[in-house]
Amino acid sequence: MSELFDAVDVIMAKRDGHTLTEDQIDWVIDAYTRGAVAEEQMSALLMAIFLRGLTRSELNRWTDAMIASGERLDFADLPRPTVDKHSTGGVGDKITLPLSALVASFGVAVPQLSGRGLGHTGGTLDKLEAIPGWRAALTTDEMMAQLRSVGAVVCQAGSGLAPADRKLYALRDVTGTVASIPLIASSIMSKKIAEGTSALVLDVKCGSGAFMTRLDLAQELARTMVEIGEDHGVRTVALVTDMSTPLGLTAGNALEVRESLEVLAGGGPADVVDLTVALARQMLDCAAEVVLERGIPAAGVSPHSAEAQRRAGLLREADLVEALHDGRAMDTWRATITAQGGDADAPLPTARHTDQVISECDGYVTGVDALSVGQAAWRLGAGRAVRTDTVQAGAGVELHAKPGDWVATGQPLATLHTDTPDTFSRARESLTGAWTFGASPIERTPVVLDRVAAS
Amino acid sequence: MSELFDAVDVIMAKRDGHTLTEDQIDWVIDAYTRGAVAEEQMSALLMAIFLRGLTRSELNRWTDAMIASGERLDFADLPRPTVDKHSTGGVGDKITLPLSALVASFGVAVPQLSGRGLGHTGGTLDKLEAIPGWRAALTTDEMMAQLRSVGAVVCQAGSGLAPADRKLYALRDVTGTVASIPLIASSIMSKKIAEGTSALVLDVKCGSGAFMTRLDLAQELARTMVEIGEDHGVRTVALVTDMSTPLGLTAGNALEVRESLEVLAGGGPADVVDLTVALARQMLDCAAEVVLERGIPAAGVSPHSAEAQRRAGLLREADLVEALHDGRAMDTWRATITAQGGDADAPLPTARHTDQVISECDGYVTGVDALSVGQAAWRLGAGRAVRTDTVQAGAGVELHAKPGDWVATGQPLATLHTDTPDTFSRARESLTGAWTFGASPIERTPVVLDRVAAS
Repeated sequence: MSELFDAVDVIMAKRDGHTLTEDQIDWVIDAYTRGAVAEEQMSALLMAIFLRGLTRSELNRWTDAMIASGERLDFADLPRPTVDKHSTGGVGDKITLPLSALVASFGVAVPQLSGRGLGHTGGTLDKLEAIPGWRAALTTDEMMAQLRSVGAVVCQAGSGLAPADRKLYALRDVTGTVASIPLIASSIMSKKIAEGTSALVLDVKCGSGAFMTRLDLAQELARTMVEIGEDHGVRTVALVTDMSTPLGLTAGNALEVRESLEVLAGGGPADVVDLTVALARQMLDCAAEVVLERGIPAAGVSPHSAEAQRRAGLLREADLVEALHDGRAMDTWRATITAQGGDADAPLPTARHTDQVISECDGYVTGVDALSVGQAAWRLGAGRAVRTDTVQAGAGVELHAKPGDWVATGQPLATLHTDTPDTFSRARESLTGAWTFGASPIERTPVVLDRVAAS
Repeated sequence: MSELFDAVDVIMAKRDGHTLTEDQIDWVIDAYTRGAVAEEQMSALLMAIFLRGLTRSELNRWTDAMIASGERLDFADLPRPTVDKHSTGGVGDKITLPLSALVASFGVAVPQLSGRGLGHTGGTLDKLEAIPGWRAALTTDEMMAQLRSVGAVVCQAGSGLAPADRKLYALRDVTGTVASIPLIASSIMSKKIAEGTSALVLDVKCGSGAFMTRLDLAQELARTMVEIGEDHGVRTVALVTDMSTPLGLTAGNALEVRESLEVLAGGGPADVVDLTVALARQMLDCAAEVVLERGIPAAGVSPHSAEAQRRAGLLREADLVEALHDGRAMDTWRATITAQGGDADAPLPTARHTDQVISECDGYVTGVDALSVGQAAWRLGAGRAVRTDTVQAGAGVELHAKPGDWVATGQPLATLHTDTPDTFSRARESLTGAWTFGASPIERTPVVLDRVAAS
C-alpha cells in the first residue's frame, strides 16, 4: 500500500525544528498505530519532539490524532453534568476515593476511568481492589447505568480509548522519552477528551514523589493541559499540588482505603481533607459553569434555576466539609462500592508482617521524602516493577511522623507492612534519610501551590 | 543476564546534554550489537546524539567501541606503507579507479575496501563489475597477496569489520539520523581504522550531489574525521572537494570505467585528472611521512634513504602527471584488474538504448547540477533504490556540456544510456533545470576547495 508520507521526512522535519503539518501528524499517528511506521522510527520522532517541542497547534492536532485512533464515549444523555478529575500521580494519593463520592453527593456525575500503579506511584484500581468483591472492569453500559444511579464510578479504562496512546506510552517508557511536557499532556488529555467528560479538574503533582519535581515545569504541564482541554471544548482547571511529602499518613492499597474511609467519616489527615475539598470545589464550580452555559440539568434541577445558581456561586468549602461530616459523602461511597460488587462492610485485608522504623534522634520533622516512602511501599509489595506483577493488598508504609511533628529518640517514625518479610531490609534502605529534622517547629505548607485555568 | 547499564539511563544522559562515560559507550554499542539494546532504544539515542552532539573524547570512544565490535586487519607485515583513500560519495566519482593504480605505481600499497551504490551516488564495486570477469569478493589472504604483488586492491569490505556500524547504518537510514557529523565520521573511521591502514586520505564532497551541501559542514566533517584518525595513530588528511557539478563527463558504471581508462592513458576530463593527481599527491606525502616516521620500507627501498626523502619532499605533481602519461599507472591498473579475474582488454558493456537531451537555448553553461545528473543515472538503471536491486552495467548519463562550455540551441547537452527505455522520461524529468546558462563565459572553479590536516 502506498503511504501518504515517508516517515523519515516527518522525523527530519521535526529534527530540524520545523512545524509538522496537520496531514503529517494525522498520518504518523495513524500509520504508527497500524504498524506502517516502525517502533524505531516513532522513537526517533519522539526524541526529536522531546528536544524540539510541539507548538500549541501541533499539540492539539497530535492529541486529535490520538483520539481519532480509537472510540469516543458520550455522556450527553446523562441528566447530570460530568466532571472528571485526573492526578499526574504521587505517593499516598488516595484522593480519588473520597473525592469522587463527595462530588457525586452534590449531584454531579464523576466518571473516573483509572489505571494501575507502576513503580513508586500507586494506582487507584489497585487500591479499590483491596475491598473484597470490588471489580474494576465494567462494560460501557454498566458504567453509564452507575453514573445515572449513583453518580460516581471508578473503573478500568477500556482499551478502545486512544489506543495510539497505549502503544506510544509503552515505547516512551523504554526510550527515555517519557518526561516531555507535550507528550505527557497529549497522553493524558487524549484519553480524557475521548472519554467525553464535559469538564476536567487536573491535579498536577510537584515534588520528589512526582513526575515533575520543579514547580515551573509542573505549572507548564498544567498550563499545557488546560490549553488542550479548552481548545477541545472541555472546561479544564488544574491545581498544582505539593508532592514533596506523601499525602496523608499511608502509602499502600488497603492502608489508603482505610485512610479514605476516615476522611469520608469526617476525620482523616488534614492534608488529605484539604486537597479533597479543594479539588471538589473546583469540580463543582466547573459543573456549575457547564450547567449555566450549556443547560445540562444538574441532579434533576432545571438549569438557570436558583438551585443551579447556588451551586455555581454560593457553594463554599464549608458546605463540602459538612458533606464529609454529615454522612452524605459516605452514603455515596457505599453505594458506589456496592454497585461494583464490593462489600463496604467487609474488613480490609491486612499484611501478615509489620516492622517499625524508629527515630534515632530528637527533633522536629522538617521533611518526609515522598519518593523514598513510595519506593519503600513498592518494595514491600504494594506496587509493581513490571505491568504483569501482582500487588499485595495489605502492604505499604504507615507514617507516624510528618513535617511539623516533634519526635524523640526511640519513637516510631513509620510502620512497614508486608506479606513478604524479606523485603523489610530493602524497604528500610529506601527510607534511609527520608526524614529530616530541625531544632524548631516549622509551618505546615499548604498542599495547593497554584491554580491554573483558561485566561 | 544482568546488564551493566539500563539503556534508558544512557539515552536520558545524552538527551539531557551530559557526556557519556567510556563504560556507557562501550556497553551501549556492544549491547546493541548483540541485541540487548533494542532498535527503538538505539534510534532514540541516535536522535539525541544528532541533536546534542558528541565531544571529541566521546566520539573517539564511540569509534573504538564500533571497531571492537568486529575483527581488525593488520598490514604491518607488508614491505610497503599502506595508504587508503575514502570518498564521502558523489556523482561521477570514479576517482578510485585511476587513483589506486597511480599511487600503487609509486610503490605504495593501496587497499580500497569499498561498497556498492545506493540512491543517486554510485559505488566503486558496481563500476568495476562492469569489467568482464572482475570479482569484488576476495579473501583476506587474496587481498594481502595482491597488495604484495601489485600494490593496489579494490574489493568488497568483509562483514567482519565494525559489524556494529552496519547495524547502526541500517537503523540511521530509516530514522532520519544519517546526516549527523559525529555519526558519519565514526561510521567511516571505524571501518578504516579496523582495516589497519597506516595513513588515510579523505575526499569530503561538498555540493548538491554530496551528503554535505554546505562548505562549513563539509569542513567540519573533514576536521572531525582527521581528529579521529590522528587520535587513533592513523596519519589522516582530508581534501574538501566540489560536488556541485558531476566529476568528469560520465555518471554510470561502464561509462565511468571508460573515462577512467582515458585518464590512465594520459587524457580524460581536466577535473578528473586534477582531483586524481591532488589526492595522489596527498597519499604519497602521507606514505612518505609514514616511511620516515616509522621506518616502513617503501617499495623495497630502505627507509631514510635518499629515495625515501625524495618521495617525501620532492615528488611534484608533474611527476604524477608523468606517470599517467608514460603508462606506469596503466600497467598497474591492468595488473590489478587481471589479478581479480578481470579481462582488461575485453570490450566494456554498452546500453541497448540511447537518447539525447538537446539544448533549448544558446549560452554559456554556468552550472550542471550534480544531484539531478545522479538521479537521472540512477533512474536509467545505473543505481539502486534498495540494496537488493541489480544495476545495469551500461546505463548512465554522458555529459556533452559542462560549466564554461558554450552551447547553441539544438546541440546535445547529454546522452542517456539504458537497457530499459521506459526510464527515459523519468530521467529527463530529473534533468529538468539541471543546466543553467549565462550570457558570458565563466571561470572554471578548482575542484579542491580546502585541505584539512592535523594542526
